[in-house]
Amino acid sequence: MTGFSCPLPLPQKDKIVLGHGSGGTLSADLLRRIILPAYSNAVLEKLEDQATVEVNGARLAFTTDSFVVKPLFFPGGDIGSLSVHGTVNDLAMGGAQPKFLSVSFILEEGFPTADLRRIAESIGAAARACGVAVVTGDTKVVESGSGDEVFINTAGIGIVADGVRLSASNAQPGDAVVLSGAIGDHGIAILSKREGLELESAVESDSAPLHRLVARMLVVTRDIRCLRDPTRGGVASTLNELAGQSRVGIVIDEEKLVIHEGVRGACELLGLDPLYVANEGKLVAVVPAAHAEALVAAMREDPLGRDAAVIGTVAERDPGLVLMRTAFGTARIVGMLTGDQLPRIC
Amino acid sequence: MTGFSCPLPLPQKDKIVLGHGSGGTLSADLLRRIILPAYSNAVLEKLEDQATVEVNGARLAFTTDSFVVKPLFFPGGDIGSLSVHGTVNDLAMGGAQPKFLSVSFILEEGFPTADLRRIAESIGAAARACGVAVVTGDTKVVESGSGDEVFINTAGIGIVADGVRLSASNAQPGDAVVLSGAIGDHGIAILSKREGLELESAVESDSAPLHRLVARMLVVTRDIRCLRDPTRGGVASTLNELAGQSRVGIVIDEEKLVIHEGVRGACELLGLDPLYVANEGKLVAVVPAAHAEALVAAMREDPLGRDAAVIGTVAERDPGLVLMRTAFGTARIVGMLTGDQLPRIC
Repeated sequence: MTGFSCPLPLPQKDKIVLGHGSGGTLSADLLRRIILPAYSNAVLEKLEDQATVEVNGARLAFTTDSFVVKPLFFPGGDIGSLSVHGTVNDLAMGGAQPKFLSVSFILEEGFPTADLRRIAESIGAAARACGVAVVTGDTKVVESGSGDEVFINTAGIGIVADGVRLSASNAQPGDAVVLSGAIGDHGIAILSKREGLELESAVESDSAPLHRLVARMLVVTRDIRCLRDPTRGGVASTLNELAGQSRVGIVIDEEKLVIHEGVRGACELLGLDPLYVANEGKLVAVVPAAHAEALVAAMREDPLGRDAAVIGTVAERDPGLVLMRTAFGTARIVGMLTGDQLPRIC
Repeated sequence: MTGFSCPLPLPQKDKIVLGHGSGGTLSADLLRRIILPAYSNAVLEKLEDQATVEVNGARLAFTTDSFVVKPLFFPGGDIGSLSVHGTVNDLAMGGAQPKFLSVSFILEEGFPTADLRRIAESIGAAARACGVAVVTGDTKVVESGSGDEVFINTAGIGIVADGVRLSASNAQPGDAVVLSGAIGDHGIAILSKREGLELESAVESDSAPLHRLVARMLVVTRDIRCLRDPTRGGVASTLNELAGQSRVGIVIDEEKLVIHEGVRGACELLGLDPLYVANEGKLVAVVPAAHAEALVAAMREDPLGRDAAVIGTVAERDPGLVLMRTAFGTARIVGMLTGDQLPRIC
């Protein structure tokens, strides 16, 4: 579930459009206008990627995601492993150790059982690799033409580490913004497979579970303000959510962003900005400046954080706004994703 | 997630058919051949309607269900309230007090936002009525033609009452089989709306949350063997699951079954057996005979248990088999649902 920071009123749409699933302004608008008012409560309104609830003195993280990615199998992963990583990461972004998953399939009549088996095995392998147990599930079938092969929902439960209080509302002026690695790999991997693009440098999805990287970070300090995985809507939308929810400005340096050559080439070819392209194995952290160096050093010891770097700072001025200093020394506003850049990316 | 008791080998299908979502033998076969081997673990293999896991000394129930019911709005409910009741009931059948829900939408492009609002409000109202909080969610959108208006997944967390150990493997010879009320209302309500049937007696879905009825029962005794809500596949499939997992026989009395006139009429018209028609607000309980009378009396004090009755007994002979004594004094085998009697019933 994503937050929002929408400076302009949006045209109200009376029908759902693809952009309502984009993770950008339309998603935020749908959430604000329809979903939140319908079942409002204090936990939900925090708009974190996971709910944190207390049970018997334990703090549990609880999250859900449905996966409709197309194609089902793509370089670097498939809908099965992605469904595990996505939910594991939403738990990890709450500072939680992921423990239990549910897996629910909506299958289209006619879907090959061999593909279902391959996906189920991918789920099993990914869950084992993450150290989480798939403990409950469900399977529904819809008529041919009423679905699209397979949709998967995973929900997850994790246990929040003591002393950790992460929130997108916590960023404070002077904090450092840390990014764990290269951007845009997942979105471009999906798009290139879907559209049959022949890229000069092959791009693989970065789909990966981030909970062990987070655990390393929490060893350095529990005083991390916020963690987010920049999936739909990309790093740009995540930073806008943080800036909006914390009512701060964020300034990032273009030169600090790592972009693989294949992603850069595909984005130029397609007119996409990699800042808006989805990632499935990266995290954005807002941390007190005093801890930034030690955190980045610890992250770089993890294979999933090899390219970690401080990419920007939190500022008092321009609350709600994300600015990027370009390589040429100019600055530009990085808005939230509008429209539906890449549908069915996860 | 349902159990299975399949006496005959099934033809292996290389494509998904509607029956794989029926809750009957094909569902069980899919589960046994593909799903369980892929992510096997001890909790999952118990094949309860919910997982029970320990966290910090608390026993939590965790469950998930996707809802693809068609039509979205039907007499007695809609996909929103059904999504809440279904997951609340799966938690209740584990003896758990439902606490937290996740709600995830998969929307088809072009779906009217007014209908989404109506459904979200129905979810909110049902959750409030149940005393559960919707604490996290997700929304995805697929292209027109790749979905069917709206699919909903709900997952839920509940807290299992102390001293309660419910399991479909617990039934023992001599136990009583209790049913909380009339059968087949939900399935016939959906079918009559979908097919535009003009029934002489209107039938409404029995969709309702059963956790308060269960709480009443647990006041009488914590020594209940098993609770199940007979949804897809109906009472017949539920009883077969119980007989199979507990390796006992079950004998029920046809005369003890309550069937509303409209359901009886529709079933005769359509050639359906109400024992296989889905319910969404009923429970089957296997209880020690000594407690049966007191339990039924307590259930009848609850509006959702007004027609509760002992409908049968657990026997040592014919393990895995469900027999029904008919009104004429004969007996017939009640097998598990085969095929796809009523697709997209929930």
